[in-house]
Amino acid sequence: MTTLDTAALSQLFSLARTHNGFASEPIPEATLRHLYDLMKWGPTSMNCQPARLVFVTSPEGKQRLAATLSPGNVEKTLAAPVTVIVASDSFFYDHLPTQFPAYDARPIFAGNANLASNTAFRNSSLQGGYLILAARALGLDCGPMSGFDADKLNASFFPDGRYHVNFLCNLGIGDPGKLFPRGPRLSFEETCRIV
Amino acid sequence: MTTLDTAALSQLFSLARTHNGFASEPIPEATLRHLYDLMKWGPTSMNCQPARLVFVTSPEGKQRLAATLSPGNVEKTLAAPVTVIVASDSFFYDHLPTQFPAYDARPIFAGNANLASNTAFRNSSLQGGYLILAARALGLDCGPMSGFDADKLNASFFPDGRYHVNFLCNLGIGDPGKLFPRGPRLSFEETCRIV
Repeated sequence: MTTLDTAALSQLFSLARTHNGFASEPIPEATLRHLYDLMKWGPTSMNCQPARLVFVTSPEGKQRLAATLSPGNVEKTLAAPVTVIVASDSFFYDHLPTQFPAYDARPIFAGNANLASNTAFRNSSLQGGYLILAARALGLDCGPMSGFDADKLNASFFPDGRYHVNFLCNLGIGDPGKLFPRGPRLSFEETCRIV
Repeated sequence: MTTLDTAALSQLFSLARTHNGFASEPIPEATLRHLYDLMKWGPTSMNCQPARLVFVTSPEGKQRLAATLSPGNVEKTLAAPVTVIVASDSFFYDHLPTQFPAYDARPIFAGNANLASNTAFRNSSLQGGYLILAARALGLDCGPMSGFDADKLNASFFPDGRYHVNFLCNLGIGDPGKLFPRGPRLSFEETCRIV
């Protein structure tokens, strides 16, 4: 394996930005399926794959979502062609017999609510990171958001209580005119050590 | 922006594997710094950047780490040139005044332990996802792991209690002869819907 070229590294990381405005062109369903077909390969603990995605694209879905958002997130979410609800499945372990055939791992989680909940949170967040980078790899811009009322959103989109929202992410072609100034980043010395 | 080419998408996602054996060549410190300089740009809520990384490379560090691992993770971790401890900083919000200059967001977290802990867990996991994909983008193979004793590891590497381990990730050039069979993935229909 070799390192990706500078243009690819820039598109994924160094020049990518969190967008607050999006062009109105819809994203074809084929692109959403391609997006999932990339991100699904990202590793999860015991291949547990707890992430569940709702691609909100219709005006009705957007209005339902908007009712759960912090005021500052409403306008950009209504404008984005797609908003992804990244959720986690609290019964992800029911899929382990087919997804992790090495041994019967289901009882490890079925009998330990705290482990199951931590595993769902950690791994659906990891998968959320894969989603963001897979979207950028496909030429889409992302606007991830944590400003919403989780209880309201869960009641509206997941009324049976099995799935729980983790975070939201707008997708589309970003409008550079609506970017905020770029935040700084902590240095290697502030965050890393080598032992 | 355009989509990355098939070779890049394969290297990041579709053909990448979780490795269990690694060549012994060390990873230069410059590569670890490059890795951080890519992953640091991944978005976090309010630019909170809670992830803290310990790159364990020395035999002494590896032995200290091995004492905290599940038996199945010891041999591959000792063999990998680098094992990253992906941790989170429980006082990440002390950096918000410099990292998120828009307004004073520190009190939002300083006064709400549950929100702070969820934010640290979600965002350090997201940053762990960025780490894995940045490593692959640089031509490194990854072996992420959740099989360890978190209390023991925290006591050994973070005795002051401020940082908490999230997960571990071996890095190096993978040995294809030590791969396990690839697990399946849940389908779009099982995990996604469009509304």
